[in-house]
Amino acid sequence: MRNLTLLTDFYELTMMYGYFKQKKTDEVVVFDVFFRRNALITYSVSAGLEQVIDYLENINFNDDDIKYLESLNTFDGEFLEFLRNFKFTGQVYAVKEGTVVFPDEPVLIIKSNVLEAQLVETAILNILNHQTLIASKAAKVCYAAGDDAVMEFGLRRAQGPDAGIYGTRASVIGGCGSTSNVLAGQMFGIKLSGTQAHSWIMGFSSELEAFKAYADVYPDATLLLVDTYDTLKSGVPNAIKCFDYLVERGHRPVGIRIDSGDLAYLTKQARKMLDDAGYDYVKICASGDLDDKLIMSLKAQGARIDVWGVGTKLITGGEMPALGGVYKLAAALENGKFIPKIKLSDNSIKTTNPGFKTLYRVYDKDGMAFADLIALREESFDTQKPLTLTHPTERWKSITLEPGEYTLRELSVLIMDKGKRVGKKPTLEEICSYARAERESFWDEYRRIDNPHIYKVDLSDGLYELKDSMIKKIRNTKV
Amino acid sequence: MRNLTLLTDFYELTMMYGYFKQKKTDEVVVFDVFFRRNALITYSVSAGLEQVIDYLENINFNDDDIKYLESLNTFDGEFLEFLRNFKFTGQVYAVKEGTVVFPDEPVLIIKSNVLEAQLVETAILNILNHQTLIASKAAKVCYAAGDDAVMEFGLRRAQGPDAGIYGTRASVIGGCGSTSNVLAGQMFGIKLSGTQAHSWIMGFSSELEAFKAYADVYPDATLLLVDTYDTLKSGVPNAIKCFDYLVERGHRPVGIRIDSGDLAYLTKQARKMLDDAGYDYVKICASGDLDDKLIMSLKAQGARIDVWGVGTKLITGGEMPALGGVYKLAAALENGKFIPKIKLSDNSIKTTNPGFKTLYRVYDKDGMAFADLIALREESFDTQKPLTLTHPTERWKSITLEPGEYTLRELSVLIMDKGKRVGKKPTLEEICSYARAERESFWDEYRRIDNPHIYKVDLSDGLYELKDSMIKKIRNTKV
Repeated sequence: MRNLTLLTDFYELTMMYGYFKQKKTDEVVVFDVFFRRNALITYSVSAGLEQVIDYLENINFNDDDIKYLESLNTFDGEFLEFLRNFKFTGQVYAVKEGTVVFPDEPVLIIKSNVLEAQLVETAILNILNHQTLIASKAAKVCYAAGDDAVMEFGLRRAQGPDAGIYGTRASVIGGCGSTSNVLAGQMFGIKLSGTQAHSWIMGFSSELEAFKAYADVYPDATLLLVDTYDTLKSGVPNAIKCFDYLVERGHRPVGIRIDSGDLAYLTKQARKMLDDAGYDYVKICASGDLDDKLIMSLKAQGARIDVWGVGTKLITGGEMPALGGVYKLAAALENGKFIPKIKLSDNSIKTTNPGFKTLYRVYDKDGMAFADLIALREESFDTQKPLTLTHPTERWKSITLEPGEYTLRELSVLIMDKGKRVGKKPTLEEICSYARAERESFWDEYRRIDNPHIYKVDLSDGLYELKDSMIKKIRNTKV
Repeated sequence: MRNLTLLTDFYELTMMYGYFKQKKTDEVVVFDVFFRRNALITYSVSAGLEQVIDYLENINFNDDDIKYLESLNTFDGEFLEFLRNFKFTGQVYAVKEGTVVFPDEPVLIIKSNVLEAQLVETAILNILNHQTLIASKAAKVCYAAGDDAVMEFGLRRAQGPDAGIYGTRASVIGGCGSTSNVLAGQMFGIKLSGTQAHSWIMGFSSELEAFKAYADVYPDATLLLVDTYDTLKSGVPNAIKCFDYLVERGHRPVGIRIDSGDLAYLTKQARKMLDDAGYDYVKICASGDLDDKLIMSLKAQGARIDVWGVGTKLITGGEMPALGGVYKLAAALENGKFIPKIKLSDNSIKTTNPGFKTLYRVYDKDGMAFADLIALREESFDTQKPLTLTHPTERWKSITLEPGEYTLRELSVLIMDKGKRVGKKPTLEEICSYARAERESFWDEYRRIDNPHIYKVDLSDGLYELKDSMIKKIRNTKV
């Protein structure tokens, strides 16, 4: 396990030291992680929780870390000694990985003493922001691809090794079926896929010779890259010759891959040539700067693509390379009671939701997601009674559901207690199958790529009243 | 050292196995890494070479790796046995880290047997694409900031831990002076900076109390975050009260930080308030979704900002989250002679430059960069003779420089031989000071953010003739 204890912003340490000198080491606080609203974020798939747990369970300032911190001449010996025995001992509540989440929802809640809560802010945001970004992008890409297979192969364009490794993991949670990334395959048991590069083709004296050399080694897994010289004039005709060569020897060719050029035109022509030669069963795999929008466009144009290889724009998030996840103080325990905290903003949508909260999903009679409800953890809901959902800022927008019309599920559950995982570690396969069910519990109208319907995320009555009264109180007080 | 041996695309391994079965284990090849032209790439700062060297020196398939590869049922025992003793034993030529580079230039050249060259493609691209992207973005951000200090603090929005750690390293190569990232500080000796978060302010019963509590702990490093409640009505006035408190006790306050709101307006007003209170020497630090363009705009508006904190849009590359670095076969050794290889494309700009090459920079009489010259490694240049520079695709565009009018520097140098580093490992400080001199050897016209002048990257006569003749030959041959 890598030591990521110092993977934090310096101000976390300077604040910790400040709290330490102020003798606040026992002060308990609650921090929320949530994503901010953004034109490009409508529907997100939460990912990264397993890595957050690994990180939290392994926090440990080793000798080198202490020596380095000492060298900064910022902290006293008493504090450095305190860090030697420092562990994360708090509680974590979170939505399970693969859960569909929306802006402003507490996807993770830390309840711990203020020093621990402060230290872990940066790494938690780093991990959740990254993996949730990529899982969400993958969900869009896979939604656009419909029932077709999507392979992730962006490693070479990922932002460093971890971005490749954990980006692949997140892509699979978002719906990708396989990856080119061998290390991610090894670490997480993800199915690998891959064929040959242009350099293989160029390394032989002719394209056909290169194809046959590959077919000799992989007679039952021959997928040929046909765009090195000229896709339709040489690549596909040579692939057909190579397929004939395989069939004569009792093997079944797999397909072709096109990595450049006009994919709509080339795949339609290639499909016809393959069908005419009796290879209607071989697959066409396409790649080259694909993303959800380009896949939709190619499908609309009738491109004949069976497998989509998606790289750069998936593994980096493409047009949106960062998710605006933030970590905000929600409550502080004073004399055994949680005092809610709020951060005001001129922009009412940026004002935080105060208090120690939880998150519910409201399902309709058909079991489809209807709305989410951010509530105070102390509130209880009885599905035998009507449920009123209130708009976060526009109070007059509210809906009441009658008993029998809805069911409720609490999404934010206890994940860590006293610094240790609660329950069994899920396999990636379990996470993926949960994630699939999650996505399928949303109507297409929420999932579509362009102008999706905005899903309702409402505040409970208790939370609404609390927030409203706190805002009024602060507005009337001089700070 | 982490084992990144399996950080590769699966097709690298399937091709390696193919070459192995074809008994091509001794075939020597030359691959080039270069960046493709792109509207957003004009001026790049090469970074990541040290991590590439670390990776190459440490390639080693351990027992777990072999066991995993065996489980894929793709490779035979002979090949797995071969991998057990596999090392990178080749040569690497590259431009030094911090070198300013342009599209199509060979920033790194691998000369090794084909199996080694194939395995290392993905990780090399991953590392160089990432760090060069971030160093280049940092160079733009720092260029916009002029003589002002720029702090990198994007860790929480970086695409995973490595993107934060190595992105910070690259930011410093690109010109940033400090970071918030403690682990990067420890690993690379980068100066740390950081103060307090909104949660610190919210954790006390008043803003002034929070300020004073911080000042008590850091009396000589008090930089106060003033935008938690209301920047001008409470934040700055309370900061001034806190500064008075410090001055009374014989300390010198450092500054304020504004993280939200209209930075042009707020910093101008805050500067005036601070100056009027006698604090003309305290610094104003601003942050909040900054990048090169926003910094230019704020400067044009007369914002009074001394220190720029840049996060998300630096650490992710912002509008361009991936650099299109590619790895292309340039030559193969056949019977002791390098046979140049070329990859054609319908788009002439995407046709590769064949042969075992090198890269020169041509300087004018003032020592400023004038043009780059991609040449065959076998060519030699005599600065006592005129030098002709030829446009890569438009032959009629050529320039001849007379002796005395120019000097030449070979940028692509031997970095690794027989799989081991050649020469001394530079410190990050040395890399940064070289990188600074590199940037300063370019006129502002090439460095400006909007519509920079396009720098000339020309082909030597030898390379031009070779490429032209190869293209003609292929066009006249049936593949």
